[in-house]
Amino acid sequence: MHILITGAAGMIGRKLVARLVKDGKLHGQTIARLTLTDVVTPETPRDFAGAVEALTSDLSAPGAAAKAVAARPDVIFHLAGVVSGEAEIDFEKGYRVNLNGTRALFEAVRSAEFKPKIVFTSSIAVYGAPFPPSIPDDFHLTPLTSYGTQKAICELLLADYTRRGFFDGAGIRLPTICVRPGKPNKAASGFFSSIIREPLAGQEALLPVAESVRHTHASPRAAVGFLIHAAGLTREQLGPRINLAMPGVSCTVGEQIDALRRVAGNKVAARIRREPDQLVQRIVSGWAERLDAKRARDLGFQAESTFDDIIRVHIQDELGGKIAD
Amino acid sequence: MHILITGAAGMIGRKLVARLVKDGKLHGQTIARLTLTDVVTPETPRDFAGAVEALTSDLSAPGAAAKAVAARPDVIFHLAGVVSGEAEIDFEKGYRVNLNGTRALFEAVRSAEFKPKIVFTSSIAVYGAPFPPSIPDDFHLTPLTSYGTQKAICELLLADYTRRGFFDGAGIRLPTICVRPGKPNKAASGFFSSIIREPLAGQEALLPVAESVRHTHASPRAAVGFLIHAAGLTREQLGPRINLAMPGVSCTVGEQIDALRRVAGNKVAARIRREPDQLVQRIVSGWAERLDAKRARDLGFQAESTFDDIIRVHIQDELGGKIAD
Repeated sequence: MHILITGAAGMIGRKLVARLVKDGKLHGQTIARLTLTDVVTPETPRDFAGAVEALTSDLSAPGAAAKAVAARPDVIFHLAGVVSGEAEIDFEKGYRVNLNGTRALFEAVRSAEFKPKIVFTSSIAVYGAPFPPSIPDDFHLTPLTSYGTQKAICELLLADYTRRGFFDGAGIRLPTICVRPGKPNKAASGFFSSIIREPLAGQEALLPVAESVRHTHASPRAAVGFLIHAAGLTREQLGPRINLAMPGVSCTVGEQIDALRRVAGNKVAARIRREPDQLVQRIVSGWAERLDAKRARDLGFQAESTFDDIIRVHIQDELGGKIAD
Repeated sequence: MHILITGAAGMIGRKLVARLVKDGKLHGQTIARLTLTDVVTPETPRDFAGAVEALTSDLSAPGAAAKAVAARPDVIFHLAGVVSGEAEIDFEKGYRVNLNGTRALFEAVRSAEFKPKIVFTSSIAVYGAPFPPSIPDDFHLTPLTSYGTQKAICELLLADYTRRGFFDGAGIRLPTICVRPGKPNKAASGFFSSIIREPLAGQEALLPVAESVRHTHASPRAAVGFLIHAAGLTREQLGPRINLAMPGVSCTVGEQIDALRRVAGNKVAARIRREPDQLVQRIVSGWAERLDAKRARDLGFQAESTFDDIIRVHIQDELGGKIAD
């Protein structure tokens, strides 16, 4: 089996590569070859018996998509894209990378006339307030960002190309991935991770919103699990509605902090400092709070069931099981 | 006021031009100039005091969109596009004209940095079965045709460009327009019109589906009314969700025939011959039967309230008030 991963140098991409290399198989088939692409050269995994090709590639550039799919991969995990904040600041770049790049990939597959499985990472940014208390699977997409718009458009393309038989697509709307490893960043959603990550590492974290703010989270490990599970679903299981909201843990910021206290103690939880930020509060108020994700759960997608578990996954996967004193 | 109409040579386009010329004004402002574009040269209206420019133009061709908006129209009615059947048969043409053409228009407006009102004609083809008994305004878009996919994508672009302040958009999802004047055509939806139009003209019409089939209709006159009403709505009235399902008359084919009998008599209604067609039945079974269209009604959009009225509009507007004996 030959697998192509776009955006392979990103946080989820790297974790997906590591998991595939560790498993050696995908749904029972031995992985003989990996093609990894990103705008920065992806790392070549160690300890992988098969062939690896790492391409520095912007899918929206002429010929890049055709080159990425030239060896006709069986499965494509399409993760490449610019993130929410960047797509909002740079309108043209967002549409070029997120829309034109995806369309170029789909067109390259259509032109080459092979029919891979394509797993596309969408986002709950396709939703835009006002919302019901929990968003049902048949709720409309009214994104309030250019990033969310681009994801929603790519979902529609994925569904139409699949319906026409050009490939076999599955779109998964990821909730906010928490706890994101690495440094704090300027993303409006960054605090959801930093209020857990920094205290566990012995550092202070700022909380810019009220503890009553509710949001939906899944761990990086769960996100990789969604991708792998989606690659194993048949057309018959998915039916014509191939874009699915993923499950996650819906909780308030206050409940996140309670979980941190339970898992790591009062001293760690005390490292969160309240510093309200009107702008962040306004942005976050347009985001989805809770999703039914009934279809995804029925199809076997699994997230953590408590925020405590999300914190434990971070401690295991990123901190070698240790919490800073 | 300067108005641009794309797709001005089409059925709705011609009726919109005629209405604007007759009114001489749009929401109180005198129409000084009309720019009409289509892939076939639009007719220049008689009896219009202002300036008219008729362009033969494919918006997806390089430079065409920039030329169409060069004189910075105040209002753009964007009707251009290939129809459902053609977009399904010719995948590349559908995406080129319906998606690339619309995107080129929006980009031309953004580049020229003027902020017109843009009224975009979408379609209830953005919906795809299975449906609830009546489709609510917050129901998701899961088109089952490439045409519906292209319309849904353009709605998303319209909303994002509007949110970013590049123009002031309103998208209206037209129900099936009935009674369409002219010759019978091969569109799967053609029979909804032909079972009324042909009998009124003294000719036999074929009915390919069961009388229990339910669908939503509005007259060509109502469609022109929607376009004009949409052009008068403010950003404040529309809010962030600028794409709206239009109202219409939801009725079964049997109720259409009953209405024909009431309006035109038994002899006319007897000109309908049942000839079941499996393919048409299958296609029609994926279409929306009934829509709440609550937001549109609340915003003052008006369709006919009975199918009898739809037939009367056809007799008045197309047959000079006369029914064939």
